[in-house]
Amino acid sequence: MIIDCHAHMAVPGKLPAWKASLLSHRGAHGQKRPSFTEDEIRTAFTRVEMAEYGHIECLDRAGVDHQLLSPRPFQLMHSEEPKQLVHWYVSVVNDLIAQQCALYPGRFTGIAGLPQTGDSPIEESLPELERAVKDLGFRGCLINPDPFENNGRKAPPMGDRYWYPLYEKLCDLDVVGHIHSASSRLMPREPYSLHFINEETTAVYGLCKSTVLDDFPDLKILVSHGGGAIPYQVGRFDATSVPRKGMDVAGKRFSDRLRKLYFDTVLYSREAIELLVKVVGPSQCLYGAEMPGVGSSINPDTGMAFDDLVPLIREIDFITEDEKADILGNNAKRVFGLAL
Amino acid sequence: MIIDCHAHMAVPGKLPAWKASLLSHRGAHGQKRPSFTEDEIRTAFTRVEMAEYGHIECLDRAGVDHQLLSPRPFQLMHSEEPKQLVHWYVSVVNDLIAQQCALYPGRFTGIAGLPQTGDSPIEESLPELERAVKDLGFRGCLINPDPFENNGRKAPPMGDRYWYPLYEKLCDLDVVGHIHSASSRLMPREPYSLHFINEETTAVYGLCKSTVLDDFPDLKILVSHGGGAIPYQVGRFDATSVPRKGMDVAGKRFSDRLRKLYFDTVLYSREAIELLVKVVGPSQCLYGAEMPGVGSSINPDTGMAFDDLVPLIREIDFITEDEKADILGNNAKRVFGLAL
Amino acid sequence: MIIDCHAHMAVPGKLPAWKASLLSHRGAHGQKRPSFTEDEIRTAFTRVEMAEYGHIECLDRAGVDHQLLSPRPFQLMHSEEPKQLVHWYVSVVNDLIAQQCALYPGRFTGIAGLPQTGDSPIEESLPELERAVKDLGFRGCLINPDPFENNGRKAPPMGDRYWYPLYEKLCDLDVVGHIHSASSRLMPREPYSLHFINEETTAVYGLCKSTVLDDFPDLKILVSHGGGAIPYQVGRFDATSVPRKGMDVAGKRFSDRLRKLYFDTVLYSREAIELLVKVVGPSQCLYGAEMPGVGSSINPDTGMAFDDLVPLIREIDFITEDEKADILGNNAKRVFGLAL
Amino acid sequence: MIIDCHAHMAVPGKLPAWKASLLSHRGAHGQKRPSFTEDEIRTAFTRVEMAEYGHIECLDRAGVDHQLLSPRPFQLMHSEEPKQLVHWYVSVVNDLIAQQCALYPGRFTGIAGLPQTGDSPIEESLPELERAVKDLGFRGCLINPDPFENNGRKAPPMGDRYWYPLYEKLCDLDVVGHIHSASSRLMPREPYSLHFINEETTAVYGLCKSTVLDDFPDLKILVSHGGGAIPYQVGRFDATSVPRKGMDVAGKRFSDRLRKLYFDTVLYSREAIELLVKVVGPSQCLYGAEMPGVGSSINPDTGMAFDDLVPLIREIDFITEDEKADILGNNAKRVFGLAL
Amino acid sequence: MIIDCHAHMAVPGKLPAWKASLLSHRGAHGQKRPSFTEDEIRTAFTRVEMAEYGHIECLDRAGVDHQLLSPRPFQLMHSEEPKQLVHWYVSVVNDLIAQQCALYPGRFTGIAGLPQTGDSPIEESLPELERAVKDLGFRGCLINPDPFENNGRKAPPMGDRYWYPLYEKLCDLDVVGHIHSASSRLMPREPYSLHFINEETTAVYGLCKSTVLDDFPDLKILVSHGGGAIPYQVGRFDATSVPRKGMDVAGKRFSDRLRKLYFDTVLYSREAIELLVKVVGPSQCLYGAEMPGVGSSINPDTGMAFDDLVPLIREIDFITEDEKADILGNNAKRVFGLAL
Amino acid sequence: MIIDCHAHMAVPGKLPAWKASLLSHRGAHGQKRPSFTEDEIRTAFTRVEMAEYGHIECLDRAGVDHQLLSPRPFQLMHSEEPKQLVHWYVSVVNDLIAQQCALYPGRFTGIAGLPQTGDSPIEESLPELERAVKDLGFRGCLINPDPFENNGRKAPPMGDRYWYPLYEKLCDLDVVGHIHSASSRLMPREPYSLHFINEETTAVYGLCKSTVLDDFPDLKILVSHGGGAIPYQVGRFDATSVPRKGMDVAGKRFSDRLRKLYFDTVLYSREAIELLVKVVGPSQCLYGAEMPGVGSSINPDTGMAFDDLVPLIREIDFITEDEKADILGNNAKRVFGLAL
Repeated sequence: MIIDCHAHMAVPGKLPAWKASLLSHRGAHGQKRPSFTEDEIRTAFTRVEMAEYGHIECLDRAGVDHQLLSPRPFQLMHSEEPKQLVHWYVSVVNDLIAQQCALYPGRFTGIAGLPQTGDSPIEESLPELERAVKDLGFRGCLINPDPFENNGRKAPPMGDRYWYPLYEKLCDLDVVGHIHSASSRLMPREPYSLHFINEETTAVYGLCKSTVLDDFPDLKILVSHGGGAIPYQVGRFDATSVPRKGMDVAGKRFSDRLRKLYFDTVLYSREAIELLVKVVGPSQCLYGAEMPGVGSSINPDTGMAFDDLVPLIREIDFITEDEKADILGNNAKRVFGLAL
Repeated sequence: MIIDCHAHMAVPGKLPAWKASLLSHRGAHGQKRPSFTEDEIRTAFTRVEMAEYGHIECLDRAGVDHQLLSPRPFQLMHSEEPKQLVHWYVSVVNDLIAQQCALYPGRFTGIAGLPQTGDSPIEESLPELERAVKDLGFRGCLINPDPFENNGRKAPPMGDRYWYPLYEKLCDLDVVGHIHSASSRLMPREPYSLHFINEETTAVYGLCKSTVLDDFPDLKILVSHGGGAIPYQVGRFDATSVPRKGMDVAGKRFSDRLRKLYFDTVLYSREAIELLVKVVGPSQCLYGAEMPGVGSSINPDTGMAFDDLVPLIREIDFITEDEKADILGNNAKRVFGLAL
Repeated sequence: MIIDCHAHMAVPGKLPAWKASLLSHRGAHGQKRPSFTEDEIRTAFTRVEMAEYGHIECLDRAGVDHQLLSPRPFQLMHSEEPKQLVHWYVSVVNDLIAQQCALYPGRFTGIAGLPQTGDSPIEESLPELERAVKDLGFRGCLINPDPFENNGRKAPPMGDRYWYPLYEKLCDLDVVGHIHSASSRLMPREPYSLHFINEETTAVYGLCKSTVLDDFPDLKILVSHGGGAIPYQVGRFDATSVPRKGMDVAGKRFSDRLRKLYFDTVLYSREAIELLVKVVGPSQCLYGAEMPGVGSSINPDTGMAFDDLVPLIREIDFITEDEKADILGNNAKRVFGLAL
Repeated sequence: MIIDCHAHMAVPGKLPAWKASLLSHRGAHGQKRPSFTEDEIRTAFTRVEMAEYGHIECLDRAGVDHQLLSPRPFQLMHSEEPKQLVHWYVSVVNDLIAQQCALYPGRFTGIAGLPQTGDSPIEESLPELERAVKDLGFRGCLINPDPFENNGRKAPPMGDRYWYPLYEKLCDLDVVGHIHSASSRLMPREPYSLHFINEETTAVYGLCKSTVLDDFPDLKILVSHGGGAIPYQVGRFDATSVPRKGMDVAGKRFSDRLRKLYFDTVLYSREAIELLVKVVGPSQCLYGAEMPGVGSSINPDTGMAFDDLVPLIREIDFITEDEKADILGNNAKRVFGLAL
Repeated sequence: MIIDCHAHMAVPGKLPAWKASLLSHRGAHGQKRPSFTEDEIRTAFTRVEMAEYGHIECLDRAGVDHQLLSPRPFQLMHSEEPKQLVHWYVSVVNDLIAQQCALYPGRFTGIAGLPQTGDSPIEESLPELERAVKDLGFRGCLINPDPFENNGRKAPPMGDRYWYPLYEKLCDLDVVGHIHSASSRLMPREPYSLHFINEETTAVYGLCKSTVLDDFPDLKILVSHGGGAIPYQVGRFDATSVPRKGMDVAGKRFSDRLRKLYFDTVLYSREAIELLVKVVGPSQCLYGAEMPGVGSSINPDTGMAFDDLVPLIREIDFITEDEKADILGNNAKRVFGLAL
Repeated sequence: MIIDCHAHMAVPGKLPAWKASLLSHRGAHGQKRPSFTEDEIRTAFTRVEMAEYGHIECLDRAGVDHQLLSPRPFQLMHSEEPKQLVHWYVSVVNDLIAQQCALYPGRFTGIAGLPQTGDSPIEESLPELERAVKDLGFRGCLINPDPFENNGRKAPPMGDRYWYPLYEKLCDLDVVGHIHSASSRLMPREPYSLHFINEETTAVYGLCKSTVLDDFPDLKILVSHGGGAIPYQVGRFDATSVPRKGMDVAGKRFSDRLRKLYFDTVLYSREAIELLVKVVGPSQCLYGAEMPGVGSSINPDTGMAFDDLVPLIREIDFITEDEKADILGNNAKRVFGLAL
């Protein structure tokens, strides 16, 4: 069974249209919550957008059995004001994902968006998380390390007490926190897609340099896009976390902590996926392709789509078949507690 | 011949003491330019600091014949005010590097610091570059993509016209621009060492998404620390630079441009160095170990220092011996124009 | 012939969806300019939205022969960044209006949006105005007195030299400037619909207290929503513009200048429309209903839609039938130079 | 009996001289509270300033029996710092008004200034209100919706909980809140006199879109200058407060709430006063002329002063004589609880 | 002949009243320039305010023959906006001083206020200086080193090129620049009277540490209140301007430059005046008492007014009678070029 | 016995080098607390720096028996961030002073630095004060009235309740608060050395205009550099604190309060020292020379060092020998409670 742990909802045109409306009236028209017909949803899942085929067909062709479906992060607009807009939008999006999961039984499991906003305590986003898990049956949520969306201010690092109420709630609910930033206003210097990578790098660093993983031994964190730069740069951060002549080193070894996190394989190159598996170990890798999406174009070097990652994993020659099966699905089942 | 293309000066205690003084009086005492005796310099090169041995001994033991010596980037204080302090400090540091090169003939070549400051046109730092190359015989300079040092504002991306006078000057002088940010004020979220990685990621992205490399075909850019996240994330950025159903793609393929840049091997893990060589090719890789430095602790897994990288390169099984020699020294000779 | 001088385009769902996309990727995906099929446009003009009937049917039922069609102002997002988004959006919207005019020949005339942005000289928006008039055949444009969209900063008043290049261009092109602000970020204090009124009040004040109308005797300015508060408050401003014991009064009488402006009748009450006609005279009033729109609900007191204004005008007992015809259509023909 | 419900104190030259002194020393000289002789006050009431005649003579000529006397709002300097200056100034002004009322028995009733300052909770201004009512016998106070005086920041809208302690206190004391902003720093875009109108528009909107009037059924609010733009624009706001196809409408009808407020007739044109009476009904209109003042110049069209409003009210042909008497005086007696 | 070189105008009540009016309407009422009758001026000069007697009587009793009359500095409101208010106010004040000089022939000479404003080039204040000297016959002007009035920003130091156009103009016109700051917004930390002292200290420091006095050898600068802290602290600044072991010292000796400036004796203690004369020499001291004013109270230790300084000077036992005469009058005649 | 009450530690080069390191890594390397050998300390006390001789030799030659040793104020970096750096630095500095006192028994007594930071309540610096007194045996601390170091914001004045917890702690511990600001960022307008003077002026003003000295009758405050401008300007401030015709004067006489403070003689001119003794009385003056330091250059007029102040005090002809002895040592013994 192949499970794509990092995938985003199909978006009926009504959703961004409603979002644009919110951003035009800034709440003056009230919520005017949209609803979506089954047809609209099916259309969204068959529409050809970033890939050669529609969403469902992409999955079928790639042999993907199940996807963890979350909001499209760059559309979450965490930095917009008034903050009520963010709460409205996330709530609608989570409901739509639940509707999508229900419409394709067994195909999808929901991952919630959190209504994070820059200046607010993280507690304000927890009721929606609880609703998503308890009422909608979701198994995790996105965590945005930068709810200011690169507007010049920044939230505390992921090791800060600011985030502890969220970590507690994730442990209480026994669901997964999936690190993924939203949009970026620092244009054209750092578009959102690049910002993802930098924020993942910073988030993993913040987690591995702090005691979060010691304080919450049951916390399950999944990092997007293979962990940003960290697995590639692990030597650098490892080197300053081991003893050295005449220097105290506080805390545990960086790479030991790193191997307590989970990483998806949304990397789009054989070299990168292999490096990830070597560095963090097969038990920490979850197949992810974010399909269809940014990787759905054809790699001229291979003639295959960049996001056609199952073959790359099957061809890894330094892990066992069981480990491959773990990466492709079993790890996701275990970590997300999927009853498939 | 083994050449470490990324190394930093040894620092006699008088230099930071003078710097602290500048930051205490903010220019009120005038420049009071320090001078350094040969003894002070030799002491600095034999002092045991980050490594098991002194600087020179580290090189000898690792079999490194030559190093390109630049200022310690995180000490460059580009964001301090008044701006005159930055000019004073960089000028002293460049002179000190020249003195160090002269004291150890054949062992070092100088790479200049640039007196970059946040709000200033890049032109203001070019006289010092010209001085360093023409008067001091240096063969390149550090380029800080974030002279604001993470204080909330940012310089334009590396593809912006803001940087063109620097690129022109580098081409005119036929020297190398070495991308390396300085300190970071965004503490504790993003310490300088992490900021290096994110800024390299952003800088390479900015170069490969713009026409800089087309506009300056002779420009030679060396990226620190193996290019931040980019070689590991190359699939991601490549995927959006190739044609896709129903979408125009402006510009050249990301990975094609990427392979016009040079990268050092300051990565401290076998997996990362091998990935780098695979992704950008041996002709673009320059041996770099930044020795002694952050990587000079002992890797408990191998019993060797993290920065003992020559063996890792010699053991790569997918390139030729000539290619290894290129990485270890010939590329540096060619790119920096070293007469060794 | 009845001409509604103040009406807004019908909006196919694709337009706000595209706008939401721009605001999510902030330009990172490029322009990805949408196109609209005739069907999509017709659907937009028949969709029941704010009114009991679709756009075209509303006009037919109300006996409106022709409408001047402009962008929906509160969606113009003049304060969003980077500024390029504003230029892209306005250009698409103007093209769509042109397409709508062409699809319903004789029914609509285009009024352009201007790509105004807060910090930019007004000259930056003039090429799009010129394109709209010369290439698309439009007969005027919206002018937003507050391109900052109530974000705490403000553009200079309408009498300031800042606006003169726009006034010159309007005179050169012989088209109408239609004052209408966009959205408002000052929420919940001043939603966009209230902000319209305050900005019209301020704009008319700025024009009548300055020499703009003397300096540009041919300038044709149409003020939305019956001029905000001004016709109702005219006594107040008139009183300080006439001579008074011991006080110099600079400039002309306020009400004399006021009567050089044009006003639409988008007021939705008999009392207000009658006051407007009395205060500025029938020659300065242009029928406007903004139909369908905010006024398309049913007035419980009358059983008619608030925006069913033709009867109110026909029932005015203190002007002639010719004057009524002027208000209902002839004035618009003359002012906008419509060849109907 | 004719009662002008909106009038401002006569100002002996010593008061502004003392104010200028406060603004020069910013409190360094201490309060140095001025006192005023009967002669100085009488001089102020006979001095010819804005009108053809002195204050008292204006009233006698216009047949005005009684005035509600408040501070000159544009002189209240609510945005000046340190905030103590505002408290000092308002306290002196209220005392002076009390002295003026005492000097002309039966002619005036005091309306207090409130020492509002931008960043302070409204509670800080309530002791002075209580003092003015209980010790000085005043029957109401001015309420400034924008104590920041247009400096770029804004207080919450009038429907916000911020204002509830004031509303409670007004109900407890059974006195009237008279909405009137102070000066404006947004020059030359929006001088204070224009700012009055926009702030009244915004204040009435805030009250009628919120539940304030439901939560405080006994609250008595008088709006200056005929309510800004609102009675003229009532159709606009009414239209979005009635049910509409497919749209929920929260709250009560706008015009129903509007008719719970009181409005003065400080409008200076026949058309405007008649519109006001039609829209809000005679029971909600209170004669106000702000005499002598901005309206004391001669209207060239009529040869009468703009503020000679009694004839305009007497000539209204659609209300009864009793209703005219209500407007001219009885309403004021009832609303302010005047024992005349 | 005794000449008080530092004195301020008598202020008729109408002037601050007009100023308060400007600050209330912020220019909305226009300039409404006040005029002053001879009676009003005479009243101001006989009114008992800070002293036991009126202005003229104070002079007569103290035996002061002539005063240099400037605006009251703390009332100059250089930091108020819009800036036009400053220009209006200063122009009226200068005219009033001219009128006062004319009314008391031989008693007063005018010293102009400058319409300095924080963000403006100093050139904007020079036309008024030229007018004051050429049209009104004034012999100098006040210079405010801090036109921001302690609002958190600061003008460049007095040695900066910013001020050079003013120095040139002073030399061209052959008149004196009298250093005196205006008000202070940094309350209650630093009231204006304390701010005077700190700004004089800073101004003298800026002049003596720069080359201003070398670049303008004919420049005549008079420093208020005996030079702030500088004559008392001269050792401190002198010590760092003389050669020292191993240290270069740029520029001339501090105390040598100091003795090119002129100082008034507005110090109100015997010890301070004697120190001043010792430190800068009798040729640089000009009698100043700022009478009547802050020093017009009775010193309980002596029974004399603090500003009764003539006896203190006469009693100095270490200078000659000629030197005393110089201090008391001849220096002022020479420096200001008075034809008395 | 001669006691210099105002002296600063000798600084081994390692201390500023460590400080520069902190400011480069901003805490990323952790505290890495330096330690100092006896040799390093002795070297610092014999190094020729500002003076002709080393620290100890200067004292011996000047006949100074004992010094109160505090941190070098301009190096305290109170405005640097993150604030933890300030706490680290001050703690190391205090420990180093304690080590210095121990190394030269009987020669020095420690005065602590306080870890003040701009935005923090003063309470945050009190644990370090308590540690310095109780654990290290210090007898006082520096108080910086401007922990923002002239960055545009300011702490409350010294009379404000903000400082009361510090005053209480000083009284509880029975130690002295020595007023001395740190560095200044307002360059080049106000270098730190000038800023000292202005801040002392402001601090003394704040103390003498408030009730601090009444509220804390046992509080012992020593003011640096002879009190800034205050003793020289005392007449000015005294004059407004005595009764005056028609004016209330709040509080006590300025000069009476002034004489409750203590002042050092760090003035470097005979005239200034004599003025100080006359104005505040010999009981309030403590010999201070800050030797070696800013005053250690040779006064060309006398051929002696500026800081050779003992002769100046011995030569004062208007006090007794006992009073001289008090100034030179007994006062310090008493005020600081020194058991010498």
